[in-house]
Amino acid sequence: MAHPLARLTDRLAATRPDFPWEIRWLDGSSSRYGDGVPRAALVFNSASAIRRMLTGGVLGFGEAYMNGQLDIEGEILELLRFGFSEPFLGRMTSRGQRLTTALQPWRWWNSLRKARRDVTHHYNLGNAFFHLYLDESMNYSCAYYKTEDSTLEQAQADKMEHICRKLQLQPGMRLLDIGCGWGGLAIHAAKRYGVEVLGITLSQPQVEYAQELAEREGISDRVKFANRDWRNIGETFDRVVSVGMFEHVGRKNYPRFMAAWKQLLAPDGVSLLHTIGKDVVTVPDPWTQRYIFPGGMLPALHEILEVAGSLDLVPVDIENLRLHYALTLEEWLRRYQANVESVREMYGERFVRMWRFYLAGSAVGFRYGDLRLWQLTLTHGIPNDLPLTRAGLYKD
Amino acid sequence: MAHPLARLTDRLAATRPDFPWEIRWLDGSSSRYGDGVPRAALVFNSASAIRRMLTGGVLGFGEAYMNGQLDIEGEILELLRFGFSEPFLGRMTSRGQRLTTALQPWRWWNSLRKARRDVTHHYNLGNAFFHLYLDESMNYSCAYYKTEDSTLEQAQADKMEHICRKLQLQPGMRLLDIGCGWGGLAIHAAKRYGVEVLGITLSQPQVEYAQELAEREGISDRVKFANRDWRNIGETFDRVVSVGMFEHVGRKNYPRFMAAWKQLLAPDGVSLLHTIGKDVVTVPDPWTQRYIFPGGMLPALHEILEVAGSLDLVPVDIENLRLHYALTLEEWLRRYQANVESVREMYGERFVRMWRFYLAGSAVGFRYGDLRLWQLTLTHGIPNDLPLTRAGLYKD
Repeated sequence: MAHPLARLTDRLAATRPDFPWEIRWLDGSSSRYGDGVPRAALVFNSASAIRRMLTGGVLGFGEAYMNGQLDIEGEILELLRFGFSEPFLGRMTSRGQRLTTALQPWRWWNSLRKARRDVTHHYNLGNAFFHLYLDESMNYSCAYYKTEDSTLEQAQADKMEHICRKLQLQPGMRLLDIGCGWGGLAIHAAKRYGVEVLGITLSQPQVEYAQELAEREGISDRVKFANRDWRNIGETFDRVVSVGMFEHVGRKNYPRFMAAWKQLLAPDGVSLLHTIGKDVVTVPDPWTQRYIFPGGMLPALHEILEVAGSLDLVPVDIENLRLHYALTLEEWLRRYQANVESVREMYGERFVRMWRFYLAGSAVGFRYGDLRLWQLTLTHGIPNDLPLTRAGLYKD
Repeated sequence: MAHPLARLTDRLAATRPDFPWEIRWLDGSSSRYGDGVPRAALVFNSASAIRRMLTGGVLGFGEAYMNGQLDIEGEILELLRFGFSEPFLGRMTSRGQRLTTALQPWRWWNSLRKARRDVTHHYNLGNAFFHLYLDESMNYSCAYYKTEDSTLEQAQADKMEHICRKLQLQPGMRLLDIGCGWGGLAIHAAKRYGVEVLGITLSQPQVEYAQELAEREGISDRVKFANRDWRNIGETFDRVVSVGMFEHVGRKNYPRFMAAWKQLLAPDGVSLLHTIGKDVVTVPDPWTQRYIFPGGMLPALHEILEVAGSLDLVPVDIENLRLHYALTLEEWLRRYQANVESVREMYGERFVRMWRFYLAGSAVGFRYGDLRLWQLTLTHGIPNDLPLTRAGLYKD
């Protein structure tokens, strides 16, 4: 095989000689790499898949997979791991990719209307769909694994607790949860810490689900949910938290978002920003932008801190939980696969493959790639009465 | 008093109406602020002090104090706290200050020769001098107070232990300590964790002191000290640490320093950078530059992270220990005052006042001002076998 793709796959295979896998070409022939039974196979069903993998980067590969022009058999995580090895990444700095990069700034402004549309796109898939693979509390963000053996349910409960401890919640405090999702964290905080919570989201199904949950728990007097944007709050809270929402804000909005954050947070107040991010400034991956999170954008840690610092939002603790998100996504993928027939009935085969590629690709990105999970504790100014150490986060 | 200085001090006093203090003017009159017995007094001994305080910012005030043109009686920390209140800070954005800011980039390059000269200036004051106020292990950096009641000795031991835990030291590993001071951390790590250490500093008195200490402890086979610069090492270590040295590197050198750091640190290695810093990019305080740390410069956290991120040095944990440095400096100041007669004998009254102003001003800067203590844990690349949580840092 002198085909350029074979040259690429040879180079990919050389990065992990111990991993046995194979490629099955269009003509029925196959290339085997590593010793032993192949743990994964890349199967080409169409010539266009080969072309797109060579020239289209993640977008081309992802679309070819969605459309069935190529298949992945066996261990999808191990196979996608090649996507973060140098030979594949090198291809991504293609001319087309560089053009996308150059044009990106024009797309960075997310208006309120666009924000609503983007969120609708993703989260209004319906609660029933997300129930198929999330935990019972519907936490759609990185869990916190005290050990690798934790169940997803335990790890999500531990995540909510870890965040509440970082926030130094006290009974009677008022907490704002920006991007509250299905209300899990807001309800946890109100039940365990006796705080009053306002949770906001742009997804009406989430508001309704969360309200019902609060009523069932008998705390709907203390926990309110609203279909509102962070631009339209106009109150001050002792504590502010946002989990997995900053990814939708958009680079151009960072100063405006953080300025609003500061206004929402009382002086000497404590806040926690939990977001996927990067080490360096990057443009959004085009496949994820097109199919999963239109308007989504991952911040470099230093971008957040530069804006926060200029606003007197002072970091006191920053934790990188990337391996926790890898574990979370790996478990989501297992549950998704176990329920894949239901997904197929709801949305068809192309969607099934699209969402699988999203979950698996993200898991691999956190474990082997450039994805990070930043959890930042930020104070408004410099309160001097907080605990001296973080030991309290780790009390049994 | 229609004097412009009286207008300024009236505005300062208004920021803390509960704090009783007084000003004693040249003509023998005094202004009293707050109710009750004055806890501090600002005493003017010369007309030029008044002029310099109005126009010279920290530099003018500090020099007037050093020269005895003004005195501070009573609680110096409480009085200097006014230096971080808006009315005084507002004056600092004067034309002269802005000019200094504009010219600063030309001074940012610290050559090796200049680095040697700067370090000599400060640390070669002599071990005997630093013994007068540091702890017995001669830790000349922020301690770690598990409680406010810890002794300085305990807090410095706890600091060294906290750092060793963050570094995930294992027996047999090789550790590089860049800016090892008098060797306290290197010796702690070798004794407690069985690692081999190379400690480097540009101060010959420090090298000799540390070597002697290692010999007395019977571990000089495993702990070496050398008068060397970070530019001239040419080896790789499992772990790299630097405590209170980055402040001397200089803004223009950050990329070069962090690139050297990456080369010194083995792939998948863990490192810890402990440095005073800021939330935003600032130019050095001119008084501190001139009298205490020539060539010193405090980094904004985002500056460090932007450089680190571009070099694949990945933050896993960042802690802001500013209150710990306030506690440390407050204790150093107490010990310094207790031994002030010895300092006076060694270096005279002007030095006594200069060093007191440095210790007190820094303490106040950490507690009420814009000084931060950043402790960053950075990995070379993304090792996947580190502990999932930070709980191990807080085990008894």
